[in-house]
Amino acid sequence: MTTPLRLGIAGLGTVGIGVVKIVRQKAKLLEARTGRPVVITAVSARSRDKDRGVVLSDYAWEDDPVALAQRDDVDVFVELMGGHDGTTKAAIEAAIAAGKDVVTANKALLAHHGQALAEAAEAKGCVIRYEAAVAGGIPVIKALTEGLAGNEITRVMGVMNGTCNYILTRMQDAKLPYDEVFAEADALGYLEADPNLDVGGIDAGHKLAILASIAFGTQVAFDRVQLEGIQRISIDDIRQAKDMGYRIKLLGVAQMTGRGLEQRMTPCLVPADSPLGQLKGGTNMVVIEGDAVEQVVLRGPGAGEGPTASAVVGDICDVARGLRLPTFGVPAKDLKEPQQAYSNSPAPYYLRMSLLDRPGALAKIATILGETGISIDRMRQGKHVGNEAPVLIVTHKTQQSALREAVEMMQKTGVLAAEPVALRIESV
Amino acid sequence: MTTPLRLGIAGLGTVGIGVVKIVRQKAKLLEARTGRPVVITAVSARSRDKDRGVVLSDYAWEDDPVALAQRDDVDVFVELMGGHDGTTKAAIEAAIAAGKDVVTANKALLAHHGQALAEAAEAKGCVIRYEAAVAGGIPVIKALTEGLAGNEITRVMGVMNGTCNYILTRMQDAKLPYDEVFAEADALGYLEADPNLDVGGIDAGHKLAILASIAFGTQVAFDRVQLEGIQRISIDDIRQAKDMGYRIKLLGVAQMTGRGLEQRMTPCLVPADSPLGQLKGGTNMVVIEGDAVEQVVLRGPGAGEGPTASAVVGDICDVARGLRLPTFGVPAKDLKEPQQAYSNSPAPYYLRMSLLDRPGALAKIATILGETGISIDRMRQGKHVGNEAPVLIVTHKTQQSALREAVEMMQKTGVLAAEPVALRIESV
Repeated sequence: MTTPLRLGIAGLGTVGIGVVKIVRQKAKLLEARTGRPVVITAVSARSRDKDRGVVLSDYAWEDDPVALAQRDDVDVFVELMGGHDGTTKAAIEAAIAAGKDVVTANKALLAHHGQALAEAAEAKGCVIRYEAAVAGGIPVIKALTEGLAGNEITRVMGVMNGTCNYILTRMQDAKLPYDEVFAEADALGYLEADPNLDVGGIDAGHKLAILASIAFGTQVAFDRVQLEGIQRISIDDIRQAKDMGYRIKLLGVAQMTGRGLEQRMTPCLVPADSPLGQLKGGTNMVVIEGDAVEQVVLRGPGAGEGPTASAVVGDICDVARGLRLPTFGVPAKDLKEPQQAYSNSPAPYYLRMSLLDRPGALAKIATILGETGISIDRMRQGKHVGNEAPVLIVTHKTQQSALREAVEMMQKTGVLAAEPVALRIESV
Repeated sequence: MTTPLRLGIAGLGTVGIGVVKIVRQKAKLLEARTGRPVVITAVSARSRDKDRGVVLSDYAWEDDPVALAQRDDVDVFVELMGGHDGTTKAAIEAAIAAGKDVVTANKALLAHHGQALAEAAEAKGCVIRYEAAVAGGIPVIKALTEGLAGNEITRVMGVMNGTCNYILTRMQDAKLPYDEVFAEADALGYLEADPNLDVGGIDAGHKLAILASIAFGTQVAFDRVQLEGIQRISIDDIRQAKDMGYRIKLLGVAQMTGRGLEQRMTPCLVPADSPLGQLKGGTNMVVIEGDAVEQVVLRGPGAGEGPTASAVVGDICDVARGLRLPTFGVPAKDLKEPQQAYSNSPAPYYLRMSLLDRPGALAKIATILGETGISIDRMRQGKHVGNEAPVLIVTHKTQQSALREAVEMMQKTGVLAAEPVALRIESV
């Protein structure tokens, strides 16, 4: 097959330009690997005049990505604009309606509209590929959908937001408080325009929802991901966790249980000597557990021009080579709506609170834990500072619902100076 | 496409039975994922009567794997017999001649005959898939050939023999000498019938040669892998390495340099806090470095029924889904014969020797290092035990050729009690 594969690239930011560079500079290599020339025919971006450091004059220009998606000389619509509604969605829909294959790095789009887009694409015989949407340069979609296709997946976990992991490891290494490191990350340009996408766990939650769909053959259900950000993690939490042999990570976990699908993206304690515990800085890690393979761990850069472009071009090569799979591994019409597990599987919890200096305060807390059926593994009260004393509790395995009930009861006693921080201790 | 994909499985050992179990028990899942039924039609093994714990009576039986490979009701010949010549090779050749696709877990076969088999298969339009041949359950062939296809690969590294890694980590953890741990591993059934395949680095060398071929677009050249086993690693080496912040691993490294292709499978020192340094027991790890993706690390079980069968079934699913790639990622006829790099890229080395108690002995060693242009980073002489004193030297970056020359000169001085141990310190 020597017909060229013709790309239309929409979005010429860091990643888009990274893809243009690879396709230009490695034309021979890509042709050798895919058996056909891979060429760019047209591009689209907001501003035509901006100097992007690469020659774009060889390609047709479209101001409107929808028009790009519909061009007769485009086989694959490469969407690198971002945004999950408006023009981006319209352009992808137009591409599919015109029978084009789609390659995208857009996790928000797939998390919100994955099911509808997959159904539309499959009805038209088009493929949607999105390796770059999850964990940047790590070929995790491929590993899960293809390499591990012989497995019943039992659990997928991951640290999939490099900015959060940077903040948490920097807090630990430099012994700096959250606000200071957040400001640093902001100054370094690590944060999204809306930082809550990062530190609120939303971006990572999108990725988890996509992985869960492939892993369990269910429809993407981002709205059912239990989300909690890292904003309330203090330097104290990090130190306490470290003292006990743990690290705090914004960890995504998806697992199918008898009660339904658990999906959570929350700060957790993980053993310091586990691969997840050892992960530092902006690096991502995904752990896949299957009944046959046991456990596979994938680690790599979660963002950046090169790694993200690497994943996009990997997808383009797949299309060039003729690999045609349903978007989420099985036909979209066969994906089941996941039954949400409203209670998570039991786990030990880390509980930090600030106790007011009143007689019997600690006894009240302990009594509430007893009444809610939560048994205590360790408890430690620190020195009073002013009118408050820090109290740290590690529970034995308990239901999250029981813990929530206990925390609510504690807050009503009037002996707490602030809302407690409760973190799951995940066995990895 | 609802035509069933029909498998003929040759070899019903641990892995073969693992594959039979998955294909039987997950028929629905595999059909959902591949879009067509995946069925076994015939099997072959040495003994028909052996109880293997699974029902085989539904499948036709062939005593001769060559006959199995040629059956009209077989689309994919699944070779799990082992051995790289004789019947195994004949059966695979027969399968290809009959136009069947091949899935195999046989690293030795591919390391020795990969080029010829790939050429034969591609001439007939057949595919050969072998994910299970390298690093067991880790989908590394797929990551390298497909997921990272947009990269110029700069280096591939790996710990790919679980038995060696088990021995080395067990020596460290239990503070036991090599011979004792070797005997333990033997008793546990971890060793190949010919243990030199494991501890001599041959098995891992086969895997490295396969990865190098895909990474660099060169013909598999196992005969040009620099091989060194772990047999001479002492508990002392392990302790010394640990004291300096390193771990000793049987590490495979393949990289393309201006001087040609370097392929070595040798015991190396790696930083204790690197992913490779932290790898314990029988787990495997492959590190892939590409110009765009930077570094991706894959970790998982390197052997065992489930993990190996997982990889084999992943390949079967690829064939069922219609993925058809050249064996080594680019057409076999385009693979270049690699130019072997006779000198490795410079690195610091760890050098342990036992010095006889003679006046000026240490001076002689130091002088030789100076004469061969090797500068010393650290040197330490231990207490004499009897007539001998241990000496440990860490050099600055040097050529392996210079080091070899130095070691040869040292041996001629008559001040060494035994041949020195020289280990490369790999930057990872």
